[in-house]
Amino acid sequence: MGRVTVGRPVLRVRDGVVSRRPDTLAAEEPMEIRVNGRPLTVTMRTPGGDFDLAIGFLVSEGVVHSAEDVVSVRYCAGATADGGNTYNVVDVGLAAHVPPPDASLERSFYTTSSCGLCGKASLEAVRTSSAWSVAEDSLRVTPELLTILPERLREAQRVFDSTGGLHAAGLFDAEGNMLCVREDVGRHNAVDKVIGHALREGLVPLRNSMLMVSGRASFELVQKAVMAGIPLLAAVSAPSSLAVDLADDSGLTLVGFLRGSSMNIYAGTDRIEVVPVG
Amino acid sequence: MGRVTVGRPVLRVRDGVVSRRPDTLAAEEPMEIRVNGRPLTVTMRTPGGDFDLAIGFLVSEGVVHSAEDVVSVRYCAGATADGGNTYNVVDVGLAAHVPPPDASLERSFYTTSSCGLCGKASLEAVRTSSAWSVAEDSLRVTPELLTILPERLREAQRVFDSTGGLHAAGLFDAEGNMLCVREDVGRHNAVDKVIGHALREGLVPLRNSMLMVSGRASFELVQKAVMAGIPLLAAVSAPSSLAVDLADDSGLTLVGFLRGSSMNIYAGTDRIEVVPVG
Repeated sequence: MGRVTVGRPVLRVRDGVVSRRPDTLAAEEPMEIRVNGRPLTVTMRTPGGDFDLAIGFLVSEGVVHSAEDVVSVRYCAGATADGGNTYNVVDVGLAAHVPPPDASLERSFYTTSSCGLCGKASLEAVRTSSAWSVAEDSLRVTPELLTILPERLREAQRVFDSTGGLHAAGLFDAEGNMLCVREDVGRHNAVDKVIGHALREGLVPLRNSMLMVSGRASFELVQKAVMAGIPLLAAVSAPSSLAVDLADDSGLTLVGFLRGSSMNIYAGTDRIEVVPVG
Repeated sequence: MGRVTVGRPVLRVRDGVVSRRPDTLAAEEPMEIRVNGRPLTVTMRTPGGDFDLAIGFLVSEGVVHSAEDVVSVRYCAGATADGGNTYNVVDVGLAAHVPPPDASLERSFYTTSSCGLCGKASLEAVRTSSAWSVAEDSLRVTPELLTILPERLREAQRVFDSTGGLHAAGLFDAEGNMLCVREDVGRHNAVDKVIGHALREGLVPLRNSMLMVSGRASFELVQKAVMAGIPLLAAVSAPSSLAVDLADDSGLTLVGFLRGSSMNIYAGTDRIEVVPVG
């Protein structure tokens, strides 16, 4: 652990002036996720929160739904030829009642529908694999409350300021209190780490909560929120079309371009306490 | 095609004023890549440049190295149960001399080394699967030339301005002339589209060229540049530690934080014509 940042020399050019100086980079290392000892996937991630990442990934993919589905999580000793531990292989043990994931899990998530591969099939795949419904969640928030989330996320981003290279995800309660924040070179990893942490704390499904991400809102980030039972996803930047479709389909509130006192609400507007005048 | 952007209504909040208005979003749809008729992977992407995306992905993964390795590329008709074409399934036919990829390609790329899973193994995997060496590439550029690339990329980003939600990748020759630009909701996809286009034009290996990306420089983006024989990768934002390691290991020049008249050069400084004074 302790590898969240790495020092490296850099040649810096500023207005024609060249200097050599030390720089701080976000650490990136591969991590293999195993389930019941069987390799499932490899992701490039920032080390730290690895158990959360592994479990959050399994929540997002519909393998694990709540804390009692997981009986163990550990680094694999002997992952290398000489029996050493790289701390880059994490094995999750599932409870006996949990079916292990398909080996071709990443593919199957998008292609389980018989209607062929399209956005509609992707929405259907999330609908059939989610154990929680966010549509009936009673969360209600004001725009004023939402506008404080980016600053709170930013303040909590310890590593970003030194490296400029990390995505952040923050989990908030209905009053805007931060419950958990995680950073990673991969945007999806930051969200998986937050969700995995919440599951291990027994908080999944995450009813009456909000997830805020530092970048764009893709289909996969909305998927992760829905799979964890989170009723509201807010992003600093733009959503994609399929992200909005999935939010609409799932009853999730999707907020984009949340900056300063402004935001765009793309889906689930009922949860935002405003009086439309336009 | 023609689905690069999608219109959606949005509830907009600006300084307490709420209005309903139309918005333009970056389109996102799943795409399945097949090789010789066999499904290989699914990626979420912005439709358009799909053949380039499929081929560029195969270049990045070391399956395809130059134009003569590909004999056909087409949308699969009959991809759906009713025989329709979703234009979301692309099949690449390989020449007889090209070994088809392993079904577990994504995993195997990072885990082929016997030394276990670590950053070093990932570097080794790229080294053994790359057909081109970028270390001896004769490209030389001045910082002044590099500083014009972000603006040229930005000018060419037609879709970004309307959606705010797309990553861009641009390919430049040694004089800074833009050869190709592509946008996508996925940062990796934009690069794959550029590389796939270049391969189909017979330009791979892309000697004496430069790749510029709108976001961060991860390990995987450096990998893609190396696999296509591109000797210089420049990014608007930060690189990760493993991206710098791979650039060092491969002899690729890696430039980060390229903004205005400033930049940081993390690897391959010999190609930058400066006189260090610091």
